[in-house]
Amino acid sequence: MAKFLTDRDENYAQWYNDLVIKADLAENSAVRGCMVIKPYGYAIWEKIQAELDRMFKATGHVNAYFPLFIPKSFFTREAAHVEGFAKECAIVTHYRLKNDEKGKGIVVDPDAKLEEELIIRPTSETIIWNSYKNWIQSYRDLPILINQWANVVRWEMRTRLFLRTAEFLWQEGHTAHATKEEANEETQKMINVYADFAENFMALPVIKGYKTDSERFAGALDTYTIEALMQDGKALQAGTSHFLGQNFARAFDVQFTDKTGKLDYVWATSWGLSTRMIGALIMAHADNHGLVLPPRLAPYKVVIIPIFRSEEQLTQITEKAVKIKNQLETAGISVRYDDRDNNTPGWKFADNELKGVPVRIVIGPRDLENNTIEVVRRDTLTKKTISTDEINCYIIGLLDEIQNNIYQKALKFRNDNTHYVDKWSEFTEILDKKGGFIMAHWDGSPETEEKIKEESKATIRCIPMDTPDEQGRCVFSGKPSTKRVLFARSY
Amino acid sequence: MAKFLTDRDENYAQWYNDLVIKADLAENSAVRGCMVIKPYGYAIWEKIQAELDRMFKATGHVNAYFPLFIPKSFFTREAAHVEGFAKECAIVTHYRLKNDEKGKGIVVDPDAKLEEELIIRPTSETIIWNSYKNWIQSYRDLPILINQWANVVRWEMRTRLFLRTAEFLWQEGHTAHATKEEANEETQKMINVYADFAENFMALPVIKGYKTDSERFAGALDTYTIEALMQDGKALQAGTSHFLGQNFARAFDVQFTDKTGKLDYVWATSWGLSTRMIGALIMAHADNHGLVLPPRLAPYKVVIIPIFRSEEQLTQITEKAVKIKNQLETAGISVRYDDRDNNTPGWKFADNELKGVPVRIVIGPRDLENNTIEVVRRDTLTKKTISTDEINCYIIGLLDEIQNNIYQKALKFRNDNTHYVDKWSEFTEILDKKGGFIMAHWDGSPETEEKIKEESKATIRCIPMDTPDEQGRCVFSGKPSTKRVLFARSY
Repeated sequence: MAKFLTDRDENYAQWYNDLVIKADLAENSAVRGCMVIKPYGYAIWEKIQAELDRMFKATGHVNAYFPLFIPKSFFTREAAHVEGFAKECAIVTHYRLKNDEKGKGIVVDPDAKLEEELIIRPTSETIIWNSYKNWIQSYRDLPILINQWANVVRWEMRTRLFLRTAEFLWQEGHTAHATKEEANEETQKMINVYADFAENFMALPVIKGYKTDSERFAGALDTYTIEALMQDGKALQAGTSHFLGQNFARAFDVQFTDKTGKLDYVWATSWGLSTRMIGALIMAHADNHGLVLPPRLAPYKVVIIPIFRSEEQLTQITEKAVKIKNQLETAGISVRYDDRDNNTPGWKFADNELKGVPVRIVIGPRDLENNTIEVVRRDTLTKKTISTDEINCYIIGLLDEIQNNIYQKALKFRNDNTHYVDKWSEFTEILDKKGGFIMAHWDGSPETEEKIKEESKATIRCIPMDTPDEQGRCVFSGKPSTKRVLFARSY
Repeated sequence: MAKFLTDRDENYAQWYNDLVIKADLAENSAVRGCMVIKPYGYAIWEKIQAELDRMFKATGHVNAYFPLFIPKSFFTREAAHVEGFAKECAIVTHYRLKNDEKGKGIVVDPDAKLEEELIIRPTSETIIWNSYKNWIQSYRDLPILINQWANVVRWEMRTRLFLRTAEFLWQEGHTAHATKEEANEETQKMINVYADFAENFMALPVIKGYKTDSERFAGALDTYTIEALMQDGKALQAGTSHFLGQNFARAFDVQFTDKTGKLDYVWATSWGLSTRMIGALIMAHADNHGLVLPPRLAPYKVVIIPIFRSEEQLTQITEKAVKIKNQLETAGISVRYDDRDNNTPGWKFADNELKGVPVRIVIGPRDLENNTIEVVRRDTLTKKTISTDEINCYIIGLLDEIQNNIYQKALKFRNDNTHYVDKWSEFTEILDKKGGFIMAHWDGSPETEEKIKEESKATIRCIPMDTPDEQGRCVFSGKPSTKRVLFARSY
């Protein structure tokens, strides 16, 4: 099974694609650029959804649902937004099919042309702020703290499963506030929620920071981001939170009366995280045997595999396995008993490794005699035989250890591959040789940023929030700088 | 607040619309026929989703996600399906906008025309069976038991919030089986799941049955349905489960090798339930004061409202309210403490009645002295003062009682409005005077069915599963019949 994976170090891109397909996460569909998310991949998305949804609600947000369609004219209202978003998108122009008069199947009915074309949402700021206009009159109507789970479409030319697809699933938060301070606070609160989620659930260390002018969300005054390092040395933007100022309120004329009776435009934020995170999960942790899922996001935390020679042995092992399964599930640990009868134990070992199940329990005839089980952890592939009596306690501890170990491993990898660079020659050399994060000084000008991008294909991933000020000179122009910023080639 | 509702008995349609708007469930959007589901409405949908999802998983199903777009040619593959579905739908013809050369905003780029138009899914059988083709080779790959939570679009001309909108949210199950028997069993299993959900969670009695040839899902051999009676005497189809035979397998060439090595087409089912159920919830239970939510689907089961004259009283009451809230939440009962300071208690009573919160707890200064609370149930609007000591026990029992009472009330209403009719004059008279369900004999011919529809605007809602055979004569044609079927005017 695993031998069909391309070697990760030989061809990372092919390894990634093989893994997505062979671990049954997703596949390309008949529609160009759109994927089918298969049950195992979707089960990971459900885990991600459940945790994020809980975190959003714990921070006072509620869910709602806005239309899939956006009237074309809505995009033109916010100038920067239309520049960034309205170009590559799916456009609905007609609303009826009919039987071809020449008998050639069905055709678009030319009489059913829409007066105004509808865009499939690439993001929902415009349609949502058009609704908020009717919801907000006074400061008493604020804040509005809404999140939406939805599908969006961006007509990408080059697509890759999970990382870049025409249609993808995501959540998009859209909040409205009475003051600039409050909106700013919300923007930061949500990037912190994303960072918390990435580190504590995805086991993915991230660098929090804000985007430069040129990398900002179309229509935002500030974009906060969390940036993660993948195993091939490229960065992946894992979630963004935008301070939109009063731009959308102005565009859709959303004003409110403040406590003093003064009329003002409403302040806005938006923030989103998508199925792309499943790509990040794979690229950050998986190996040549397959996925390595952090226990907190694994559809099954434990798989039990029986080894037997006779039907009688299988019956006895099954009895024991079911007992262990029930026992673990009572403690909140999801377990699969893999008793598929058409595969060898070896095949099942490989299959469950491919699928990244954090813990494998193997029960054979000798285990019945000795009252033991064999436990194999996916992250290190090490084995241990333990007594049946201590299962729950051991597995609970082991799952925590695995979750932490995956995180520490990714953190070490990132630390080993973060370079503080002061010379331009070194900058490009590192990128060409091994990639990774580069912390370097930048003179703050868009021109230099653009030239660096042209010459090295690296972009400023973010201006990190937690980095101290430091006098230095721009790695490219030599002009003075007060802070290092984070460069990398990226997905 | 409630006084702004149109009287239910005067204008049912207007009452319904008023209620959806004023209870903050949903509103029309800027896009024709598409609604915005507001947070309170969406919270009910989340409750519906959680329960159904649990029931689907308990019956062995898993979730997945398939593309929003369906290539036009896919529809033509299954002849009956295209007749039923491909007509009124949203059609994507282009994938890019551009700046108008004359400076008039943005326009559709004529160079970005799709080679083949894409239909926004009105239902996903075709795109899913096109995927299943690659997933199924042998009987070992079966069954496939997949559900999808998704948005779909049907370009309806006359729309009504929740009941009929261009875009709506739903779940659609699509299963694949090795035998006809198994597929048939699945079809029935899922209509039973829907009936269980309707009765035990929505407090909505339903009649299970199958559709006549002319009312069947486009492409199905059998369509099972659950039919509920609304308070205006009209029927509402609340969920359907389809036995698709081998139609889609043939259309998409999905064959498998059975246990004997023989090649055969795969057997299919599909089943769906949508946000329309929120409309049913309203129309079945609500009254002139507003919604009456069954506790099991209420976003908040309990609201606590303080009555106070001084800040000091409020502080004391809040302390008690928070304690009660925590206590109830520990028992799994969701509670809202409505301490909004800009509204009178009376306004809050009306607002929470409008929103259908099952139980209202009122705490005033005298309650502090007496160690009591006042409890008002939404379904009957009756009050009772109880001791604080017995709160949890009392509220848990009361919520069960309310859930059951709402069901019994709806059941009594349905029984009172189900008529066994043998004469055609009586048939039309009942429909015109009071509506309701009519159980009558039918000769089994589509011609008679069509004539009955023309003359009475009533359709055969279903041929009930639990009705005994009975010799009789068709209420319209007088020809012999062996079973009564269910007629009604419907949504």
